[in-house]
Amino acid sequence: MIYLTRRERFSAAHRLYNPALSDEENFELYGPCSNPNWHGHNYVLWVTIKGKVNPGTGYVVDLKKLSRLIREEVIDKIDHKNLNVEVDFLKEKYISTENLAMGIWEQLDPHVKALGVELHSVRIQETENNFAEYFGK
Amino acid sequence: MIYLTRRERFSAAHRLYNPALSDEENFELYGPCSNPNWHGHNYVLWVTIKGKVNPGTGYVVDLKKLSRLIREEVIDKIDHKNLNVEVDFLKEKYISTENLAMGIWEQLDPHVKALGVELHSVRIQETENNFAEYFGK
Amino acid sequence: MIYLTRRERFSAAHRLYNPALSDEENFELYGPCSNPNWHGHNYVLWVTIKGKVNPGTGYVVDLKKLSRLIREEVIDKIDHKNLNVEVDFLKEKYISTENLAMGIWEQLDPHVKALGVELHSVRIQETENNFAEYFGK
Amino acid sequence: MIYLTRRERFSAAHRLYNPALSDEENFELYGPCSNPNWHGHNYVLWVTIKGKVNPGTGYVVDLKKLSRLIREEVIDKIDHKNLNVEVDFLKEKYISTENLAMGIWEQLDPHVKALGVELHSVRIQETENNFAEYFGK
Amino acid sequence: MIYLTRRERFSAAHRLYNPALSDEENFELYGPCSNPNWHGHNYVLWVTIKGKVNPGTGYVVDLKKLSRLIREEVIDKIDHKNLNVEVDFLKEKYISTENLAMGIWEQLDPHVKALGVELHSVRIQETENNFAEYFGK
Amino acid sequence: MIYLTRRERFSAAHRLYNPALSDEENFELYGPCSNPNWHGHNYVLWVTIKGKVNPGTGYVVDLKKLSRLIREEVIDKIDHKNLNVEVDFLKEKYISTENLAMGIWEQLDPHVKALGVELHSVRIQETENNFAEYFGK
Repeated sequence: MIYLTRRERFSAAHRLYNPALSDEENFELYGPCSNPNWHGHNYVLWVTIKGKVNPGTGYVVDLKKLSRLIREEVIDKIDHKNLNVEVDFLKEKYISTENLAMGIWEQLDPHVKALGVELHSVRIQETENNFAEYFGK
Repeated sequence: MIYLTRRERFSAAHRLYNPALSDEENFELYGPCSNPNWHGHNYVLWVTIKGKVNPGTGYVVDLKKLSRLIREEVIDKIDHKNLNVEVDFLKEKYISTENLAMGIWEQLDPHVKALGVELHSVRIQETENNFAEYFGK
Repeated sequence: MIYLTRRERFSAAHRLYNPALSDEENFELYGPCSNPNWHGHNYVLWVTIKGKVNPGTGYVVDLKKLSRLIREEVIDKIDHKNLNVEVDFLKEKYISTENLAMGIWEQLDPHVKALGVELHSVRIQETENNFAEYFGK
Repeated sequence: MIYLTRRERFSAAHRLYNPALSDEENFELYGPCSNPNWHGHNYVLWVTIKGKVNPGTGYVVDLKKLSRLIREEVIDKIDHKNLNVEVDFLKEKYISTENLAMGIWEQLDPHVKALGVELHSVRIQETENNFAEYFGK
Repeated sequence: MIYLTRRERFSAAHRLYNPALSDEENFELYGPCSNPNWHGHNYVLWVTIKGKVNPGTGYVVDLKKLSRLIREEVIDKIDHKNLNVEVDFLKEKYISTENLAMGIWEQLDPHVKALGVELHSVRIQETENNFAEYFGK
Repeated sequence: MIYLTRRERFSAAHRLYNPALSDEENFELYGPCSNPNWHGHNYVLWVTIKGKVNPGTGYVVDLKKLSRLIREEVIDKIDHKNLNVEVDFLKEKYISTENLAMGIWEQLDPHVKALGVELHSVRIQETENNFAEYFGK
C-alpha cells in the first residue's frame, strides 16, 4: 500500500458566523473572523489517496488524473469564490477549516473511488499556523 | 549601512474592479479576481529599513519597535478586513498588489523616519507565485 | 473526528550531555551538541488535537484558545530560555528533541483534555532536517 | 514510542516508460515524464524511524548515525545519477515516485533494524505538489 | 516604479561538461554534475519586471499575461526537457545556472518590452542552497 | 555580471547585552534576548558574490569552492558555538544580527576576492520574521 499526496491551492473569501446571532455576538464568539465584510485566505489543500502500485505502470494512480479530478470537483468551485455564499457543497455550513475539510472529502470521495483507489485524508492549511485534517470518519 | 527586514502577515478579502465598468467588463479585464462576492489572500509583507548600527546597542533599530509600528500603522488596519471597503488609506484605489505596496509605503514612511532610520522597500506576496515591491519612487 | 494542528515557534539554548561524563566523553557521545558553552535553535512546534466538530460553532476547538494554552503552558516557559537550566518541566532530563516532545506532551495533555478534546501528537522540528514526534505512548 | 524523522535531499534524472511500448505510446501513458532524453528533479526524502528513548542518552537513535546510514545506503547511490540506468536497487523498475519510495524502504530496512530501531515510513517529494509515502506493507 | 515578480517552476535534466574534455577531466572540473548519464533538478524561476502603475487598472502589467508569456517563451521549451540537447536557446552553451539565467533573460526581454514594461531580473534556484540572478548586463 | 548566492545554515547560542549595564537594565533594553543564561537560533546565511561568467567553464565561480570557503572561514567557527564567548571575529561586539552580518562580511571578503570575484552581500535570517543584510558599506 502506497500513499500518494497531491497539493493544490485556492484563494477565497469567507466569514465565520452563526446567522442566529448578532454581529456583536458573532464577534464575541469568532473574533475578527466574523467580520461581516469578509476576509480571506490562500488555502493549501493536500489530498492523500492510498492503493497498490499497478505493476504495468509503476503508478498507484496517475497524479495528473488525480490533480484534474481535484480541480474539477473542488478547486474550480471554490477558488476566487466567497465560500459562504457561492459554493453549493458548503451551503448551510459554518465555513470553518474543519467543515471545509469535511466538505471537500465528501466532494472527492466517490470520484477517488472511481479511480480505483481509496481516499485517505484531506488536509487544509488556512494560515501557516493552522491546519485541519479529516480521514473520513 | 545595514538593511533590516521584518516579515508580517495578514489575511484579507478584496476584489479587483473598475467601478465605471459592468461586472462583465470587469471580468473581462480582471478575470476571477473581479468576483463581486470577493475573494481573499494570506498576504505576506516584508518591510526593509536601512541605517547605521548604533554602537551603543548593536542595533540599527529595535526590530520589536519596528514590528509594533508595522502592526499599529498597517496590520491592525488591514488584517481580517475587506481591503476595498474598510481601509482608509486604500480608499478610492484599485486594490492591486501594486497599490497595496504603495499604500503601505505611505503609511509607514513618516513613522519609520521618526525612528531615525530610512524606509528602503515594501514587498508584498499575494500568492506563492506573485510579488510586488516598492522602493518609494 | 477532525484533527487540528497549531504551529508555534520558540528560540532556545541547550546542550546535550550526561553529567556523569567528562566534557571529552560527552563530545565523543554527542559531538558539537555537547558544547559546554551551549548552542541553540529556532524550534518549531506542531500540536495536533482531535475531536468532533461542535455543530453550534463549526469548530472542534477554538484555535485561538488552543494557541493561548500552548503559549501559557509551554512557549512562555521555554522561549528565549536555556532549556537545560531554566525549565522546570525539563529538569533532570537530557535535552534531546525526543525528551522535549515528551515533556511538552505532559505539559499540554491535562489542559487539552480540559478543553474537551484529545491531544493527538506533539511534533518538534529542531533543524530543517530533524524532527521528533510523540503520540503519548 | 517516539518517531524521529531525518530529511535528506538528492537531485537525479529519470524517465517514466514501459520498454515494451513505443515512444508515442509511452507519451500517451506518461506524458512529458516519458521524454526519452530524460528530465530530473530535486527529490526530498524523509525517513521516519520509531523506538523507545534510551534513558542513558536521551536519544532513540543518534540522528547523525541515521543520516550517515541514509547517505551510504541511499543518497550516495542515487544523487546526481540517472535513476533508470545507474541504480542497482531500482533496476527493472518503473521509476515512479511510488517505486522509488518502496525501493528506498528495502535499502534502509535491514540497516535501520541493525541500529536497534524500527523503520516507520519513507516519504518522497518529487515536486512541491507531489508526494509518495510507504510504510512497509 | 513598482517591481513585480512572477514565480514559475520547471523540472529538467542537464549535465555540466566541456565537450573538448574527457569524462575524467570533466569529472575533475565539475564533479558529479558532469555525470554523462545526466542528472536533474526542480528549478524555480523568478522573473521581475518594473514599470509604472496604470491608473486605469491598478496594474503595472497583468500578471496572468506575464505568466503566459513566461510559459510560452521559456517554460514550454525547457520543462521536462534535457537542457543540453533539446533547447534551442541554450544550444552550444554550458548548462550552468549562470548561463540558464542569461539565456532565459534573452528569451524574455523583447517580449517583456512588448508588454510596455522593463525586464529587471531573472533569478533561478537550482537547489535550495544555490541561486543565480542576472540583471541584463 | 551574474550574481550567485550560496545558502548555508548554522545553529548557535547568543545573548544581547551591554556589559556596562546590569541584568535588569539589559532586560529593559533588549527584553528576553538579554537572558544571561543564553538562548539560540537556527541562523540561515545567504552569501552573494558577483562576477563575469568564465567562458571556459560556464561558471562565475565554482559554488562548491564558495561553499567550502564559507564553511572554513565562517560556519566552522560559529556553528554549535556560543557567539558571545567563542568566536574570535565577534569578540567585543554586541551579537546583534546586524553585527553578525558585518562580521561575516569581514571574514569572507578577502577570501572571496582571492577567488577572483566580488562579495556583493551577506544576508542573515535570525528567525523566519527577522533578517539583516550588509553590502560592505
